[in-house]
Amino acid sequence: MSAKSPVIVDLKFIPEEVEAALRGAFPDREVINRADAVHHNRDLSGIDYAVVWKSAPDLFDRAPDLKVVFSGGAGVDHVLTLPGLPEVPLVRFVDQTLTTRMSEWVVMQCLMHLRQHRTYEAQAAKREWRDLTQPEAADITVGIMGMGVLGQDAARKLSAMGFKVIGWSRSKRDVAGIETFGGNELDSFLARSDFLVGLLPLTPDTRGIFNLRLFARLSRNGPFGAPVFINAGRGGSQVEADILKALDSGVLAGASLDVFEQEPLAQDSRFWTLPNVYVTPHVAASSDVKALFRHVEQQIARFEGGQALEHVVDKVAGY
Amino acid sequence: MSAKSPVIVDLKFIPEEVEAALRGAFPDREVINRADAVHHNRDLSGIDYAVVWKSAPDLFDRAPDLKVVFSGGAGVDHVLTLPGLPEVPLVRFVDQTLTTRMSEWVVMQCLMHLRQHRTYEAQAAKREWRDLTQPEAADITVGIMGMGVLGQDAARKLSAMGFKVIGWSRSKRDVAGIETFGGNELDSFLARSDFLVGLLPLTPDTRGIFNLRLFARLSRNGPFGAPVFINAGRGGSQVEADILKALDSGVLAGASLDVFEQEPLAQDSRFWTLPNVYVTPHVAASSDVKALFRHVEQQIARFEGGQALEHVVDKVAGY
Repeated sequence: MSAKSPVIVDLKFIPEEVEAALRGAFPDREVINRADAVHHNRDLSGIDYAVVWKSAPDLFDRAPDLKVVFSGGAGVDHVLTLPGLPEVPLVRFVDQTLTTRMSEWVVMQCLMHLRQHRTYEAQAAKREWRDLTQPEAADITVGIMGMGVLGQDAARKLSAMGFKVIGWSRSKRDVAGIETFGGNELDSFLARSDFLVGLLPLTPDTRGIFNLRLFARLSRNGPFGAPVFINAGRGGSQVEADILKALDSGVLAGASLDVFEQEPLAQDSRFWTLPNVYVTPHVAASSDVKALFRHVEQQIARFEGGQALEHVVDKVAGY
Repeated sequence: MSAKSPVIVDLKFIPEEVEAALRGAFPDREVINRADAVHHNRDLSGIDYAVVWKSAPDLFDRAPDLKVVFSGGAGVDHVLTLPGLPEVPLVRFVDQTLTTRMSEWVVMQCLMHLRQHRTYEAQAAKREWRDLTQPEAADITVGIMGMGVLGQDAARKLSAMGFKVIGWSRSKRDVAGIETFGGNELDSFLARSDFLVGLLPLTPDTRGIFNLRLFARLSRNGPFGAPVFINAGRGGSQVEADILKALDSGVLAGASLDVFEQEPLAQDSRFWTLPNVYVTPHVAASSDVKALFRHVEQQIARFEGGQALEHVVDKVAGY
């Protein structure tokens, strides 16, 4: 039996977390962690596998024989745009922990907007004890755009918390207990959504979809009088100049943004300090690196055992 | 048929909310809202019912013939300590909306501590884009003290979000899917709790129960190395000097407090501005005033129809 192919690891994550997760991972094969200086000039030809997240642009040039590319996250737009992506299967990271983490973030943001957290924080800073008229979750309809694994889990948990939840996806999906809308029903979906949650992949169809025209079609019948935009999908789906205009003019009452057109978010961006905007640095569903390597090990075992890979990306659809 | 007894309303809520909720309420009897100046010198003798929340201390003197007293909230310690409380049934406010609202607050606080919200907010204030090592909900055991209607609902929702949840109550309760502990098992319960949620009624047994000795028995094995204290029960259950000591010395990593020994919280309290402490002004489960009046109407209908009142307080146990 020939030696097993090494795995190239090229992940722009917290380096210590990658190192810690690599201890004990891939016990039967070599790991080439490109963050290690020792591997900088390593010959990567003849290697079958790479696990990547915002990898160095020379990766595919230097590793021309890859048989499978694994994305370090649920999204793959960062891989699809890499120069020289080979014509081999690209596998998304799908894992319970990724889904759970994303829903934690989405539910927390919805609750903070519902419970007027920023207003209470501002009052606390002034040492002011004052209660606000408070709607409850059932008074708010949360519309989720993107009803894949992440969207469905968020929908279930928001429902459990008492929110009314509706979902939209390009191809309408049946989801137990959730009213869903398909591609051509966007208007009716938006008109019902008091909070809009974006969990869309970045594709040519979704680029710039969250713009002023769309925000203007959202419900203004909710208890806060204007809608809230929450995006944990991809920054490329949003037009940030339009979000700012919408916030300034009252078309939007607030926002929670984990993703941005350019990351890291520029130091001089107004988003950092707007009163009813929450900014997080693309951490809504931070990959659990140990879980990522377990998933890659499982898929490699399937691949080498002659079974079909799971979670293979449709490169034309883009997700 | 004799005219129906009026209802006295004496609620320290937002006055506009009470007025709005009274429109259409109690259609078959007079309402005496003590917030109305016109009623200040009104003779209240011969009246059967009062709905109270931190009512004026002269109420029971002036209304000596009450047959039922209704609390405007789930807690009744504010009524039990009123001078002259008559020996008549005292009915707690139990309603789905109260429970739902409390769980919104509890889940939001647990998520904000889990997701290191204050640290991310501090980074955003410095326009700093940096991800933190992030545990997930399943890494945290939330221990709930008080497993009545509110505790059980919070437990179910925290579980749905992925937290491990355990519950403690004076008399051990069986709750589907939740490991529970009884009065004499407090030590084992505390040793397992990374986040401690207080949802206890205020009674002689629970006064000052949240003190330094108790905090020192909480788990230090969680991902943050020190426990978090979250109280939405009653301020009288906590020793605030001890919470401050525990925060200063690292016995506690953080806190969320909706209730205080003295309310409103004093302007010079350190709680307003401590880095990992969230303060809200006793609004975790703000009573939905419309729902409160519906509940009172239903109970009066039962009472006048000869049926037993529901949610009657055991004045010896104190809840």
